[in-house]
Amino acid sequence: MSTYSPDAAHGGHGDHGDIQLDELTLEEEIVRRLGDASADTAEYALWLGDDALILAQQLGWWISRAPELEEDVALGNIALDLLGHARSLLSYAGSASGRSEDDLAYWRSEREFRSSQLAEQPNGDYAHTIVRQLAAAVYMFDLYSRLRTSSDETLAAIAAKAVKEVDYHRDHTVEWFRRLALGTDESRRRLEVAIGHVWPYVGDLFRDEPLIDRLDGVAVRPSSLRARFDVVIDALAAETGITFPDADTARGGGRRGMHSENLSILLAEMQVLAREHPGATW
Amino acid sequence: MSTYSPDAAHGGHGDHGDIQLDELTLEEEIVRRLGDASADTAEYALWLGDDALILAQQLGWWISRAPELEEDVALGNIALDLLGHARSLLSYAGSASGRSEDDLAYWRSEREFRSSQLAEQPNGDYAHTIVRQLAAAVYMFDLYSRLRTSSDETLAAIAAKAVKEVDYHRDHTVEWFRRLALGTDESRRRLEVAIGHVWPYVGDLFRDEPLIDRLDGVAVRPSSLRARFDVVIDALAAETGITFPDADTARGGGRRGMHSENLSILLAEMQVLAREHPGATW
Repeated sequence: MSTYSPDAAHGGHGDHGDIQLDELTLEEEIVRRLGDASADTAEYALWLGDDALILAQQLGWWISRAPELEEDVALGNIALDLLGHARSLLSYAGSASGRSEDDLAYWRSEREFRSSQLAEQPNGDYAHTIVRQLAAAVYMFDLYSRLRTSSDETLAAIAAKAVKEVDYHRDHTVEWFRRLALGTDESRRRLEVAIGHVWPYVGDLFRDEPLIDRLDGVAVRPSSLRARFDVVIDALAAETGITFPDADTARGGGRRGMHSENLSILLAEMQVLAREHPGATW
Repeated sequence: MSTYSPDAAHGGHGDHGDIQLDELTLEEEIVRRLGDASADTAEYALWLGDDALILAQQLGWWISRAPELEEDVALGNIALDLLGHARSLLSYAGSASGRSEDDLAYWRSEREFRSSQLAEQPNGDYAHTIVRQLAAAVYMFDLYSRLRTSSDETLAAIAAKAVKEVDYHRDHTVEWFRRLALGTDESRRRLEVAIGHVWPYVGDLFRDEPLIDRLDGVAVRPSSLRARFDVVIDALAAETGITFPDADTARGGGRRGMHSENLSILLAEMQVLAREHPGATW
């Protein structure tokens, strides 16, 4: 199977050629140039940025733990892409209140995180990670595709970069889904168990909150992403004979700060070092 | 401070331009084209490949746990570079015995690993990771620089790619060393504690084993790397006023399969998934 690597997605690895542009810097530049986010736009940027940040942390764990070294590299690259998106989105969100990306990552409480409950579901075995990433990548791809035409120029610019990377994440995850579904009896069984655990949290992604009504033209309405998501998943189900359960059974509420203990554990790991040394230079 | 990112080192991130070359594939191509390693050369390739593999696993842990998001990205990128070097070197080592990179990563016992004891020292706090990486990167840079002229064309080709990346790893780690040494009292104190824990394992890197006598012109003699290593470290010591202890106090023996319980833990994490499903497609 083809594998996601920075080379396929981003041009030559190790290439010291023409382009030396640091796109993270570019995005900081965009944020600075286009001005500060409104409070509502900042809140929406946290929806997307926190999803990316939490998923990046979870995928990073797989470096050297995936079933193949090639896959270690692929998941590590996806994690770093998502971390890049998180940094841009958190920087922009912080512009509304004079906070930095690090302030937002390390100094918010669990209740202030706006990630979906899907993102905080545990890595579990490899099938759990793939199922969680399948839902996240299919969702993110359509979201960022449409966010490119946001009336908010900063969100549009961030989305235009992110969508290219998420396109690869989606392809890669779909290939792994097929591989597990059509592989051995054991891989298929594990995939079905994982879907049973993860899928109830998918519905959380498509809930409209009151915030969305105040961001017409700026945000992508979550409920409007559902139809295309279902088309992709239904096609995968038809191809593989795998059944997906109802996606709306978990209570959800991640966008309102309602989280499970899974997020507490992830945040404790993420935040401990920064909090042990407030204001220090490291 | 400047930060290591794939953009700075590898050309434009997100660039879909001219170069789509997958250098991992390129290196597999080199391994295939130039033929199989001898048993001795394979053993030497494991010295370097296992160091890279173990360090990659350890650095990957920091994704979303470093003191800054920018540093999460930098350490994640260093981890992925090292994983790339490990894959090339393990593929080549495996060519001597008909084994794949995955066979070598997931199906060797602790006693068969040839990584240095430095590589398996725990992540500890951030200062421990930086001190371990400082020693590893300064050592690797000179090693790969000289290995480029190895009479073994495969090792020379792998080294020629790796040295460019390790050059950035070294610069990045030296900058962090300065930042901790010249930062707060607390960061300097932690750096000194970390040096006390990590430095006794540095000597292991420079021990000549009987293998080296059989690889004249192929391998870089470890003891011959010591003088330049000391020059770099002495310069850092002079600049920062930090004292480095004797680097030869730990018993060592990593190249002969002598390891601490730290490696057992790392290997258990690395190998559990592959071993639970021997021969499965995932």
